Parts: sequence; C-alpha cells; structure tokens
Amino acid sequence: MKIAISGKGGVGKTLLASLLAKTFAESGYSVLAIDADPDSNLAATLGFPDSDKITPISEMKELVEERTGARPGRAESFFKLNPKVDDLPEKYSLKHNGIRLMAMGRVKKGGTGCYCPENALLQALVTHLLLARDEVVILDMEAGIEHLGRATAKAVDKLIVVVEPGRRSVETAYKIDKLAKDIGLHNLAIVGNKLRNPLEREFLISNLPGFEFLGFIPYDQALVDADLANLPLLNSSQQIINEVKNIYQALLPIAQTPNPRN
Amino acid sequence: MKIAISGKGGVGKTLLASLLAKTFAESGYSVLAIDADPDSNLAATLGFPDSDKITPISEMKELVEERTGARPGRAESFFKLNPKVDDLPEKYSLKHNGIRLMAMGRVKKGGTGCYCPENALLQALVTHLLLARDEVVILDMEAGIEHLGRATAKAVDKLIVVVEPGRRSVETAYKIDKLAKDIGLHNLAIVGNKLRNPLEREFLISNLPGFEFLGFIPYDQALVDADLANLPLLNSSQQIINEVKNIYQALLPIAQTPNPRN
Repeated sequence: MKIAISGKGGVGKTLLASLLAKTFAESGYSVLAIDADPDSNLAATLGFPDSDKITPISEMKELVEERTGARPGRAESFFKLNPKVDDLPEKYSLKHNGIRLMAMGRVKKGGTGCYCPENALLQALVTHLLLARDEVVILDMEAGIEHLGRATAKAVDKLIVVVEPGRRSVETAYKIDKLAKDIGLHNLAIVGNKLRNPLEREFLISNLPGFEFLGFIPYDQALVDADLANLPLLNSSQQIINEVKNIYQALLPIAQTPNPRN
Repeated sequence: MKIAISGKGGVGKTLLASLLAKTFAESGYSVLAIDADPDSNLAATLGFPDSDKITPISEMKELVEERTGARPGRAESFFKLNPKVDDLPEKYSLKHNGIRLMAMGRVKKGGTGCYCPENALLQALVTHLLLARDEVVILDMEAGIEHLGRATAKAVDKLIVVVEPGRRSVETAYKIDKLAKDIGLHNLAIVGNKLRNPLEREFLISNLPGFEFLGFIPYDQALVDADLANLPLLNSSQQIINEVKNIYQALLPIAQTPNPRN
C-alpha cells in the first residue's frame, strides 16, 4: 500500500503520517516512511533519536554526483535523468520502532546554480520507492504533489489531503486535486484536522462537496501542551490516536486488495 | 525599505505580510507586495478582486522563453542566467488599495524535465525588486529563503521569521537563521503569532534566546470566524491590527534611515 499525504503547510500532515505509520507498524505491517517535506521533521515526530543529525539525501553531495554524474550547485551541467537508486533504501534509511525512514531533504533553488541533479536523484528514488517496494509506504509531502508524476500516479493507492477549518487549506485541497488529476491520480481523499466544534466539520463538508472524507481529527490542547513541554507527541492525545485508528481501518480494505502490480 | 517574511507553513506569514503592506500603504508609502509562497494567496488576503485568476510569473511560458531563451519543461536546455526583468514590475503587477502586487508562482520540480528557466527568471526578478526598486517591498516567502542570495542579502532591511507556540515553528526559525547567516544576512527578527496565553509567549522567548522580537500577535477566534464566513480578513480583528501597527512602528526607524544604496 502506498499512501501520499499533502495539504497546506501547518495543517498537520506530519502528525497524520507519523500516527498512520505507527498504527500500520503496530499491526504488523512493514512500514517505510518518507519525509519529502523540508518544512517538517517526520523523524522527530516519529521519535527517532538524534533526528536533527539525519543527513537528507539531497545534501549527500558525493552521492548525488556519483549517481547523476553532476556535482550539485554547478550550473548547466549535464546529468543522468535515471540514476541508479535501488540500493539506496537499505543504505540510507534508519529504523526505529519497526518503521524505516528516509529523509529526502530540501532541493535548493537559490543562488545562481541550477540544482537539478538532486531533483533527478530524488525523483528517481521516489519513483522506485512507490513502484518497486512492497512495504506500506507513507509519503509526507509539501503543499503539492511535486514528488509524483504520471509514472507514479497509478502506484498511489490513496492521496490524502489534510485540511483544517479555514478557507486557505480548502483552496490548497482544490489545487492539489487539480494537480493530481493532471497526472491521472484520482484516489484522493480528505482528512479534516484540528476540529474544535461541529460547525467547523460542517464547514469542511459543505466546502468540499464530492470529495471522500476519510476522517475528522479533533483539536486537542493536550497535543500543543505536550509539544511545548517537549514530550513525545504520538502518545499525547488518546482521542487523536483513536481517530487515526478509524482512518487506518478505512484504508485497510485497500491494503488487503491483492496488489495489481505484483 | 525591504522586508522579507519567512517561517514554517501555516504560522501566518501571509496575514502579517498583508497587514504590514496595508499599514505602510495607509501611511503614505508606496508598497510593492511580492507573493513568493506558492502555498498561500497574498492577493486574496489583500482583497484583490478575482485573485484566483492572477497568472503568476512562473506560469507565463512565453515570457519565460522570451527572456531566458529556454522553453519551460524542456530538459537540459541552455538559458540566460541574467534575463532582462526591469520592465516586468510595471507590465505584470496589479494594484489595489494603493498596494502593487506581483505573484511569483510555483517552480515545478516534478516530471522528467529540468525546470530551471523559471528559476532563473524569478531569481533575477526578485534581485531586481530588492536592489533597484525604491518602494517598501514586502516579500512573502516559503519556509526558507530560497529567493534570497548573497547579492540580495545586504538589501534586506529585516528578515521577519513568524513563529507560533510550537516546537516545529521554532526549529524552522533556527534553520532559517542558519540559512540567512550563510548568505551574510544578519537582520533577522521574530514575530510570535497565534498566542493564546502568557505561557506561550514565555515559551517563545525562552526557546529563542538572543533573537530580536518585533512583536507578539494574539490568537483571535474572530479571524477564524471571518475566514469561515468568507469575510475580509484584514479588518476582522482590531487587536491583531493594533499589534501589527506596533510592529510597523518598530520597523519605521529603518524606513526613515536614508537608503545607503541610493
């Protein structure tokens, strides 16, 4: 099963990715979590020790050069568009509590250089992880689907868009839906997050007509307090855990369908 | 005066950018607001009519090709790293309530193409806007400083990092501070947002020692309610407006210093 998670910044993509990874792992699935959002820290939320010391793939300059033939940061280089990546998951992933993690990193765009070699490597790696691996793969993305393309769209069993009660995150959901349809990805579903009252739930349902809703996660001050006190987030709110378990249950029928690509 | 605004996704960068733009404009300054965050909509927050119909620069394929010599989406093209951009602000900006707006747009990274021509154009354009224009320029960025470089660092009078009470947005502030110092940008200051109680303010101050704080914006349910009801955001909370006026006052001494580049 391959699950991609997107949505506006700050809506809670990483929390949902982490709790889903944990739930699948505790149920006996082999789980690969991919951090493809440079504005978050999936490793920290999953409780990986020394999560701030993990070097993401995009910053491994020697590796990028070895595989693509081009040194990152040099403008107008020629490089391989299909670098070898199948050995990278074993070499450059970490494991903790039964969850394997890979950090993709930020693709730098600044300066005068043209930083495409990292892009080529990350693109090839994500394609490999989605097409060739048979774990439960959970991809925590930015507010877009930049890591996906026509080649990987069919492999994504569910693209979950997280929204919160607010017009901007709903607008982002529509943008993501359009980008997804452009590449032939139609398995999109919504998860509402940070809900404070039934009116906010109603707001999401009425502003996203025709969308499948996988679940609604409540706002819980206990999570904020745990964060400020630097306590582990994943165990801080039983009501959030319960709701993510419902979302997991809703996803299970997909997981149990024989994989048409095998 | 050139102000760049960054911070983790969802912390409220666009709201602060909009309210600052409005405050400067109402005080008689000529204001240029730049939307450089594809995960937001500065035009909508500023109340521009038909804000969803604005075509951002990165999607103007003919323009990108005309100026860089390369068609977007074609891999491994050669293109000009310093395209002509000085006429673009007049041609491709919109004006509303005394605020001029330019939307940069998303630089697509997906697919097999190498999308650098848009990057080259956006980079040259932002550099021009920061170095050669004499308005108050307010740059609403992503969670990073990808649009800035060594050449523009000296032109930024203040890089404002917005944080909310939460560990992740503080971590992002440290990352941005490091990226800023790497390019020689030291004029960084913090604005706390969505504060619910004095403990949360204390959390930010104690977790960001040594940083300058420009102000603390309270959480106001009136803003959320206005958003859900699709009412204009900028007038929805007097206490938020007042606090942004204080931030404006704190910025004014910079504005009144004769510009050393003129």
